[in-house]
Amino acid sequence: MSRIVAKFGGTSVADLDRIRAVAARIKREHDSGHQIAVVVSAMAGVTNDLVDLTRAAHSMHDAREYDVVVSTGEQVTAGLLAICLQEKGVPARSWLGWQVPIRTSDAHARARIEDIEIEEMERRFDDGQVCVLAGFQGIGPDNRITTLGRGGSDTTAVALAAALRADRCDIYTDVDGVYTSDPRIVTRARKLDKVTYEEMLEMASLGAKVLQTRSVELAMNHGVPVQVLSSFDDAVGSELPGTMVVDEEDIVEHEIVSGVTYSRDEAKITLVRVADRPGVAAAIFGPLADANVNVDMIVQNVSEDGSSTDMTFTVTRGDLDRAIEILNDRKDELGYTDLVPDANVVKVSVVGVGMRSHAGVAQRMFSSLAEHGINIQVISTSEIKISVLIAEEFTELALRALHTAYGLDAA
Amino acid sequence: MSRIVAKFGGTSVADLDRIRAVAARIKREHDSGHQIAVVVSAMAGVTNDLVDLTRAAHSMHDAREYDVVVSTGEQVTAGLLAICLQEKGVPARSWLGWQVPIRTSDAHARARIEDIEIEEMERRFDDGQVCVLAGFQGIGPDNRITTLGRGGSDTTAVALAAALRADRCDIYTDVDGVYTSDPRIVTRARKLDKVTYEEMLEMASLGAKVLQTRSVELAMNHGVPVQVLSSFDDAVGSELPGTMVVDEEDIVEHEIVSGVTYSRDEAKITLVRVADRPGVAAAIFGPLADANVNVDMIVQNVSEDGSSTDMTFTVTRGDLDRAIEILNDRKDELGYTDLVPDANVVKVSVVGVGMRSHAGVAQRMFSSLAEHGINIQVISTSEIKISVLIAEEFTELALRALHTAYGLDAA
Repeated sequence: MSRIVAKFGGTSVADLDRIRAVAARIKREHDSGHQIAVVVSAMAGVTNDLVDLTRAAHSMHDAREYDVVVSTGEQVTAGLLAICLQEKGVPARSWLGWQVPIRTSDAHARARIEDIEIEEMERRFDDGQVCVLAGFQGIGPDNRITTLGRGGSDTTAVALAAALRADRCDIYTDVDGVYTSDPRIVTRARKLDKVTYEEMLEMASLGAKVLQTRSVELAMNHGVPVQVLSSFDDAVGSELPGTMVVDEEDIVEHEIVSGVTYSRDEAKITLVRVADRPGVAAAIFGPLADANVNVDMIVQNVSEDGSSTDMTFTVTRGDLDRAIEILNDRKDELGYTDLVPDANVVKVSVVGVGMRSHAGVAQRMFSSLAEHGINIQVISTSEIKISVLIAEEFTELALRALHTAYGLDAA
Repeated sequence: MSRIVAKFGGTSVADLDRIRAVAARIKREHDSGHQIAVVVSAMAGVTNDLVDLTRAAHSMHDAREYDVVVSTGEQVTAGLLAICLQEKGVPARSWLGWQVPIRTSDAHARARIEDIEIEEMERRFDDGQVCVLAGFQGIGPDNRITTLGRGGSDTTAVALAAALRADRCDIYTDVDGVYTSDPRIVTRARKLDKVTYEEMLEMASLGAKVLQTRSVELAMNHGVPVQVLSSFDDAVGSELPGTMVVDEEDIVEHEIVSGVTYSRDEAKITLVRVADRPGVAAAIFGPLADANVNVDMIVQNVSEDGSSTDMTFTVTRGDLDRAIEILNDRKDELGYTDLVPDANVVKVSVVGVGMRSHAGVAQRMFSSLAEHGINIQVISTSEIKISVLIAEEFTELALRALHTAYGLDAA
């Protein structure tokens, strides 16, 4: 007997037929004698509709009232799934965030889970009951409903799995696992049986939208084995058909590179001939940070005359206009001669814990791109990933070239 | 300064524009210095959709899960109205049943309010805050969401007004008050300035769908002054444009009859030549009660030979087929010779606390109907009402004749 937390996202519970299909899968796990807690999202589209309503009511809406409105989506799914489970003869009840309770910080609309009381849920497990938990929501110190930010149901599931010391947290999604690259582009991409938390974290933050980044951090910190698997095929988590996200030591032999990912949500800004003096970086990036503009990759080139420098960096595309406006306002102070924006870029990354113990990983990336005539604009690296910024039209070519170069192609 | 509870039903909050209009009216009351608690229903149609979902999930759904699902409608409206009030500069927050808390019995889907803790709400009043309460819901002894049955938001409003010792409970509806008769039929019907709880109770249960019956009982028991007024015109409750439902002693001069009402939801059954022996009524009505068929008017005629009797009674139209089936199954036991159903009937009633102190009220009804050639099939009376069952085609004629006969016609 295992204790399993299973999470189903919005497309997995899009309508009553899909919710019934979820109930059928939970029944199979339950019939096998496992203890099951199910975490559900709102039915696909519902949360967006509710968010739109709050925005239409008032653009500067109260986050506490936003949480009251948008948390209803998960509440409806939880009640319906409990009913569908009962209809199949599986004892089940729904739990709302405040009922468990799932205690969170008071940061409404982006709260963090602080504590989950599991005593009553464990008692229900002993009675053979399936616990159906509304994801994405908790209760703040002010006794009001909080929500965890978009994609927060992943975090609910992992946090619950940690609190329950579950044997596994199964995340049912609309993909059947984590791939070496995007299968829509790289047709020879392979599904990974295992991937480490660190790799998953890099992949999540680099654009592979399989898991919410925060949920992976949480899983890593608490050592929760997470499985990513498809909600659209028939297998259930205990048959292990998906990708396991695990500790590094749980993977015997590492590939040097586990995956090649990309993110189109990038824009580049170059400030030409910025004065090369102490404090200039702070003068540029301080105001951007104050305006909540996240800066990612940064390159600074010393200019020929030694007194000025070109500064290149990336922001998300949505932040580009705001960043330009902020920098234009400070043109005199920063003393640059020109601001060159470029939204026509993509960030391509190779990720793998194996690169820690292998030399020449970056070199292989650079030479492979060069062989295909792809110019690298910016480079940034971490211990387990190398990212390059290239022109967007080379996205597919670069992904396929790198996938082949690192020996990831399916046979 | 008054303390006011204002309740807005589903059509009053049907979309964001209507919710904004509600916010504008609440702002006017708030600007006048009143303390306001607002009770809201779900946006029109939402509760029906949610009910349909639970029924589609499982016809024998768990009432506790039903409550989890259907209570979300009011939750959404409460959050949106709080936002719209804030947008107009009115300090406001939403309250859910479990947050107040509004403690109820554990009869899920038809719970009764047992206790409302008002301390925190009163503290908010002192801060000038408007309290926006999700109607129709509470929390049961099992710490789970309960709902009060359809139309329950009226009951929430009156119970809250009682707990808060509010000066007035304003029920905003899609009519602008209580009328002497249905204005769609009786063009000379007048809006009543005042009506007693007892009269309102009779009118509510007789088919005037202005207020939920239970909310009127509650108002009567706690002496809550209730005002019925329109959510579609511009006046607010403090301008007293509607109908006040009050104690008998608050009305100086009573009309003999305050209103003429009707209900088409009636069906008549006559059992011909039932054995006239002790226990036969119990043998007929016991099985109907067991099947939750409500029997309303009953007439028993002793037959000529003295050994058998004709039994006539009414049920709601929706129950007619079931009642016939139950009685057919027991034909031998009951020993009747024939069962004559008739769904082509209507119940017309005159209601007024004034009839307690006046003789001849019933006589005037009977003679007025006779003058118009309308045959009375069944009669039933209470202290403050007289009801007759007549053929449905005479409905309009009977209403107009009685409205004139009792001097209710507008000048």
